[in-house]
Amino acid sequence: MAAYNTMSVEQLTEIKEQLQKEYDTFKAQGLKLDMSRGKPGRDQLDLSVGMMNNLTSDDLVTTASGADTRNYGMLDGIPEAKELFGQLLGVDASQVIIGGNSSLNMMYDTIARAMQFGILGSTPWNKLDKVKFLCPVPGYDRHFAICELFGIEMINIAMDENGPDMDEVERLVSSDASVKGIWCVPKYSNPTGVTYSDEVVKRFAALKPAAKDFRIFWDNAYCVHHLGEEQDELLNLYEEAAKNGNENIVYLFASTSKVTFSGAGVAAMASSPANFKDILQKMTIQTIGYDKINQLRHCKFLKNVEMLQEHMRKHAALIKPKFDAVLDTLSAELDGLGIASWSHPKGGYFISFDTMDGCAERVGQLCKEAGVVLTPVGATFPYGQDPNNRNIRIAPTFPPIGELQQALDLFCICVKIASIEHIIQNSDVICTIPDQVNA
Amino acid sequence: MAAYNTMSVEQLTEIKEQLQKEYDTFKAQGLKLDMSRGKPGRDQLDLSVGMMNNLTSDDLVTTASGADTRNYGMLDGIPEAKELFGQLLGVDASQVIIGGNSSLNMMYDTIARAMQFGILGSTPWNKLDKVKFLCPVPGYDRHFAICELFGIEMINIAMDENGPDMDEVERLVSSDASVKGIWCVPKYSNPTGVTYSDEVVKRFAALKPAAKDFRIFWDNAYCVHHLGEEQDELLNLYEEAAKNGNENIVYLFASTSKVTFSGAGVAAMASSPANFKDILQKMTIQTIGYDKINQLRHCKFLKNVEMLQEHMRKHAALIKPKFDAVLDTLSAELDGLGIASWSHPKGGYFISFDTMDGCAERVGQLCKEAGVVLTPVGATFPYGQDPNNRNIRIAPTFPPIGELQQALDLFCICVKIASIEHIIQNSDVICTIPDQVNA
Repeated sequence: MAAYNTMSVEQLTEIKEQLQKEYDTFKAQGLKLDMSRGKPGRDQLDLSVGMMNNLTSDDLVTTASGADTRNYGMLDGIPEAKELFGQLLGVDASQVIIGGNSSLNMMYDTIARAMQFGILGSTPWNKLDKVKFLCPVPGYDRHFAICELFGIEMINIAMDENGPDMDEVERLVSSDASVKGIWCVPKYSNPTGVTYSDEVVKRFAALKPAAKDFRIFWDNAYCVHHLGEEQDELLNLYEEAAKNGNENIVYLFASTSKVTFSGAGVAAMASSPANFKDILQKMTIQTIGYDKINQLRHCKFLKNVEMLQEHMRKHAALIKPKFDAVLDTLSAELDGLGIASWSHPKGGYFISFDTMDGCAERVGQLCKEAGVVLTPVGATFPYGQDPNNRNIRIAPTFPPIGELQQALDLFCICVKIASIEHIIQNSDVICTIPDQVNA
Repeated sequence: MAAYNTMSVEQLTEIKEQLQKEYDTFKAQGLKLDMSRGKPGRDQLDLSVGMMNNLTSDDLVTTASGADTRNYGMLDGIPEAKELFGQLLGVDASQVIIGGNSSLNMMYDTIARAMQFGILGSTPWNKLDKVKFLCPVPGYDRHFAICELFGIEMINIAMDENGPDMDEVERLVSSDASVKGIWCVPKYSNPTGVTYSDEVVKRFAALKPAAKDFRIFWDNAYCVHHLGEEQDELLNLYEEAAKNGNENIVYLFASTSKVTFSGAGVAAMASSPANFKDILQKMTIQTIGYDKINQLRHCKFLKNVEMLQEHMRKHAALIKPKFDAVLDTLSAELDGLGIASWSHPKGGYFISFDTMDGCAERVGQLCKEAGVVLTPVGATFPYGQDPNNRNIRIAPTFPPIGELQQALDLFCICVKIASIEHIIQNSDVICTIPDQVNA
């Protein structure tokens, strides 16, 4: 197929008429499909049903520490869970804090504490005129929402196939003491699927922040979430930072939300001994401790990192075909048209899709009107504003594959229609599409 | 036995010598007993073991709402849990927010939100020169710790057998706009065991705060925690407040921490529709939702309020003998000596014990040196400062009854020794003991 931007307005109009018919046929079906969130499918959740009833009465009271998991206490989690997450996060178990069911909640709490109390004795962020966070884009909307709620100014940082633009990160972090943090999903990044290169991780580890309370929020949400045997490796940021005496600038986060149950997993964070102590000092006022039985349930079910990885292969077996279906359809429908690019991730939960500049909102609108809900266009950027109006996050995991296929067929029609409209409207200017970072 | 303060110094010295021998004998045993916290005993936790494995795969995905409890979502909880806690808290299910495993955490979050964001559009408390909370005393140390952490000034409010001194509460709340809240444990209060009278509840419901963002933190931690068939009744504060158009001043809290598992229960809060909306608006940024499987587990196990009350009778059967052992020992050892008074609660987790003014710390010290840990003396007051140095919170539920008896025997010896020391030191002044509020 020839690229749309090489065609005449007449040719495009003709194609669009055909597309419109196809679109109307879809619309008439009254579809109700949801590709908006990175939620596991039911078949994935079924993989962990064995965890529901896996504890005996004896288990509850005979933990490694001898503690009764049913009772109060153990603020930072049971030793077994600290050990498991320590392995997962690449730090010593003593540095791990086990939370409730949500790593997002731990990140929110971490920001909230910094706002209210400061970090390691520094001025509470609330008392500063301005607090800024760096936000690699496109990124995770819920990270950005936390900043927006707390009035933290967000600065977009471009991403490429190696991770964030580190020249820009270094420049801002070292020169501006109001820059207090950066959000990173360093492995199979949300939504681009990029895993940060060793060089990028090393440059993060070597940052010399102007603000002594600058922190890297390293949300390793997809640390074991590979799609196949070909896997990305992520360098251990904490170890690298420690080599530079820089270990205090790192907060690590992870959870089992996409390992066991999204609604009833276990979350954890880890950091340097100094940060750990600083956090626990506030946490001990906030709660007497999180749900230790759920921690124990997880430890008995997942056993260790090797078994956990084995478990993740079962997830991959379920979702890889969905990713393939999306990629195959995009390729079959859009290759060569010069109107879009998209990621080919080796893990994580998303495919990042870029339309021609200025077309994403129209695609979202067309999909919605025909009954397919996408992640709101713009959501992958701070303040919901994609400056190029081009990025769409495709979340293939939740719908059954038949519905996914339907949704994708429609999606491609919408992309084509929106692109043709755009080209015709701008037929006197040259339209370009961006290179997808890991296309 | 004659009252100590009617005895001569010589008589008291002789008694003390005998007590010192008994004390030394205890000390030689190298006891390690803990009466510091209101923790359920292992036998109580065993009552809910049936909840561990009570869900089938079908249960997980066939909730009343049709939602898959294993997946993300349902920020304010599953309908079944909202219904159950609505009944428990005496409000419509729609007004209930189900949290994680800790109502303390929900209270902390509620304070943190008010500090950061304000309430219903009012100025964030962080931006005010001064924020004050009223603290009925003696009270719950963890409430006070939250205020202390956030720099909220605490004002002691005396308690009597009907609840807080409402003249003082009304005066302060109506005249001082910096008074933003009050901590209440309205039923079987921690530690006094007092249940607020109908009149007190009605006066709370009719408060006319100077601050429009004043809130009553109604921590109904012991709402169904009776010790026997003779039970206190607490008027429904929310209903009473609503009659006065005052429903926004109420935040209600409860949990199953002392119904099922202290470490893995379910917490909830409830409030007016306006407050509910205000809270959810922030909570939706904080988390995608709490552990719905644990909510479902609880709902299936506890079924409804009637079954829950039946379950609580089993708790009472286990802990009433412990309370009786404490009360019998206190009575046998201390009645008539004129050196102490204590509460006789019909529910809750504590016996509130008052020494003569100025003796509590010494009692705590003596107990500790002989291997019995009490709640730190002063903990029942803001800033850990009991102005009269007299209140000791006895928590009988956790130790097995044999250990409890040992601890109590020692405790009474310590009280006697400390009292005699005090009387001798102050033999030229008149010593009095306070009336226990519900002795």
